[in-house]
Amino acid sequence: MEIEKNYRINSLFEFYQPLLTKKQNDYLELYYGDDYSLGEIAENFNVSRQAVYDNIKRTESILEDYEAKLHLYAEFQVRNQQADRIQRYVHENYPNDQTLNHLVNHLESLEEE
Amino acid sequence: MEIEKNYRINSLFEFYQPLLTKKQNDYLELYYGDDYSLGEIAENFNVSRQAVYDNIKRTESILEDYEAKLHLYAEFQVRNQQADRIQRYVHENYPNDQTLNHLVNHLESLEEE
Repeated sequence: MEIEKNYRINSLFEFYQPLLTKKQNDYLELYYGDDYSLGEIAENFNVSRQAVYDNIKRTESILEDYEAKLHLYAEFQVRNQQADRIQRYVHENYPNDQTLNHLVNHLESLEEE
Repeated sequence: MEIEKNYRINSLFEFYQPLLTKKQNDYLELYYGDDYSLGEIAENFNVSRQAVYDNIKRTESILEDYEAKLHLYAEFQVRNQQADRIQRYVHENYPNDQTLNHLVNHLESLEEE
């Protein structure tokens, strides 16, 4: 009954966190952000391990629903890849154009926010 | 009792449309997308003009709530400005580098989706 702590859910959490309730946020933050076990979270909140498990599974499904509607993570990945391509190309071909390097580095940093 | 049809709400609508209910979507699509009047929408749906007005005002406030949480429109504008800057710089300084122009034009098109 362990949940695979996967990178995708962690990323979706970063995008859609503001749309979750306080409890959903608390559980996911501890589980994914702070790497608590289900048992530790259960103890912390004085609820059953099963309740924590159910809540986290439900929240994960809510995150996937948001992604199916808004595609923030998918679009982020596409933009990020393109920013990487441009940055690499500029670094290789115009290493001495500081203005251009500054512009593309700033673009990259926007995606990492 | 007319609502100012503003560009901001129209933009927020584009970002958060998938999170709205069918009725909210219908009213806003007609009002902003197809430029119907409140009276025409009321007639179409066989409800009072006041009901349409209230619904649209409420939906606008929901859109602003989503923007306050997710900032999709604000972040889009920042990225878009940066993409514009890069595109302009590349067009002016490296008009003959087709690879670079292709890369930055594709970046711009990602933001227009």
